Amino acid sequence: MSEASSEDTFISRWFAALAGPAGLGLRDDAALFTPPPGQDLVVTVDTLVAGVHFFANDPAASIARKALRVNLSDLAAKGAEPAGFLLSFAIPQDAQSPVRTDVWLAAFSSALGEDALKYACPLLGGDTVSTPGPLTLSVTAFGTLPKGSMARRTGAKPGDLVFVSGTIGDAALGLQVLQASASAGITGLRDVERDYLVQRYREPLPRHVLAGAVRMFANGAMDVSDGLAGDLAKMMRVSGASAQINLAQVPLSSAASAALQADPSLLDTIVTGGDDYEILCTISSARAAGFKAAAHVAGVAVTNIGIVDEAAGQDAVFLDAQGREKKFQRASYSHV
Amino acid sequence: MSEASSEDTFISRWFAALAGPAGLGLRDDAALFTPPPGQDLVVTVDTLVAGVHFFANDPAASIARKALRVNLSDLAAKGAEPAGFLLSFAIPQDAQSPVRTDVWLAAFSSALGEDALKYACPLLGGDTVSTPGPLTLSVTAFGTLPKGSMARRTGAKPGDLVFVSGTIGDAALGLQVLQASASAGITGLRDVERDYLVQRYREPLPRHVLAGAVRMFANGAMDVSDGLAGDLAKMMRVSGASAQINLAQVPLSSAASAALQADPSLLDTIVTGGDDYEILCTISSARAAGFKAAAHVAGVAVTNIGIVDEAAGQDAVFLDAQGREKKFQRASYSHV
Repeated sequence: MSEASSEDTFISRWFAALAGPAGLGLRDDAALFTPPPGQDLVVTVDTLVAGVHFFANDPAASIARKALRVNLSDLAAKGAEPAGFLLSFAIPQDAQSPVRTDVWLAAFSSALGEDALKYACPLLGGDTVSTPGPLTLSVTAFGTLPKGSMARRTGAKPGDLVFVSGTIGDAALGLQVLQASASAGITGLRDVERDYLVQRYREPLPRHVLAGAVRMFANGAMDVSDGLAGDLAKMMRVSGASAQINLAQVPLSSAASAALQADPSLLDTIVTGGDDYEILCTISSARAAGFKAAAHVAGVAVTNIGIVDEAAGQDAVFLDAQGREKKFQRASYSHV
Repeated sequence: MSEASSEDTFISRWFAALAGPAGLGLRDDAALFTPPPGQDLVVTVDTLVAGVHFFANDPAASIARKALRVNLSDLAAKGAEPAGFLLSFAIPQDAQSPVRTDVWLAAFSSALGEDALKYACPLLGGDTVSTPGPLTLSVTAFGTLPKGSMARRTGAKPGDLVFVSGTIGDAALGLQVLQASASAGITGLRDVERDYLVQRYREPLPRHVLAGAVRMFANGAMDVSDGLAGDLAKMMRVSGASAQINLAQVPLSSAASAALQADPSLLDTIVTGGDDYEILCTISSARAAGFKAAAHVAGVAVTNIGIVDEAAGQDAVFLDAQGREKKFQRASYSHV
């Protein structure tokens, strides 16, 4: 793409249709975005690198969805409603890269556009560059919420109940399915279960419909992206508290349950693996019923998995069904 | 960096000191940023890739400054005052990469911190990931300006005068100096001139002090990042106008003048090369004196290089001192 204004042509061909009014038709160097009066703006950025955060041969539509949704998950965990995003798109220079084909770009752009519509989160602007490295997508997402209502990672209080949304461990198991050769890896799963886990790895489901419940009820909140154990420990550390989790209460999908039954050592993967993109939050016991009711109305399962305690030697303790402490080999998955 | 919470440790060690209050100490998944009442928010993102936008062995401090400043240049060209930024930092996985050393990170972080202070633009948050590719930095910058005052790329009007700030072509010549072997490249320059041009390539000077003058006086405005000729053509195209530029009026530094004198073919590099990060804007002739006075007060030279006309077959025509049209081999530099 070395000819005059190739970047502009590229943008208008593949991305202009995704832009809302604030994106100025993607024909300017910047976008104009101002939260409505009485609203705070919440901003977050997440970068996804092929070979690190997704597989280069994952479907283009899945890559598009993951890039946007991991950011929408951050917004939801802060209690913010999606309002728009910027996309930085670093395309491999390699002329053979599928990313440079119309087929790939059409699938990527179309899936991103569907999500922009689905989550009411238009494209505001971005940057397109080439890289000698792998496809790298950096999304900056904007959310809004009533002034002063953002849920903080630092807000967990002793006595709070610990909740998670959805189910835990699916994506980490899905990654193992993708990494395993035909003869190794997770056994005892039906095809439909393997597909389910892979889908959960490839396409997170941001819990944006829980945003209102989170900002109204949660003391501490974050999304689980680097594994439940590690992320919980982070939240407790910055909140000056500790947590005690009952492993038997950690919600599992039927696919994850089947995998765990066939191989109990997968508990480690489930609890410390990354890419859940579920909401982890702490709620005072007096308000837990309200939170559960709000989540029920939103149509997302939330599960009480333990309690917050005063700061202790360990940020988070995990107990098995017999009340014995279970230690994990690694506390969390790090994308660094 | 695979151990527990290594990303958090990394961030608190190298970046927490750069954060303003809105960054929440970089201990949350998102930042809270709300423009003051009566202000619009302007957002922009630029991604820089080692080997594409800078040299991997450029000084760490220069890389930090360039990453932030190219975005501040976008803000200035929209008439916005810097307000904060997000940094996405993709670090090479290669254990031998200098980017992974304390020396490199200290220099990078310290220079970025100096610029954050200098431009009153604190770090609000970010993301740190690893990449099998080159160092990749993506900065999202936030600016504010009085409601409705953003200068648009689309606003140029027939009859306007075309202005540029500073001098044109230095960075593109500096890039040639860096690319040339000892025996080739730009000749006839003193060391101090070569160093000046290289410095202009490595460390753009965002014209943030012109932001007020731009939003008050400019009809059309953008920053020159992909070369004067190409960027001017882009502005005219989206404004539905054309421009006529007198090459003799294009402002050159003494180093660029010396290079051009030694090799007149460098005019092509000067006018079509990228990385100027100067402001290109169009001002109605009645308001040109006001703009010049405001720029004078701000301490930045601005030069009238031509006029805007009705849309024509060509978006931009360049005339030499004899009034003959000069065609360039390529219209603009594209980072894609």
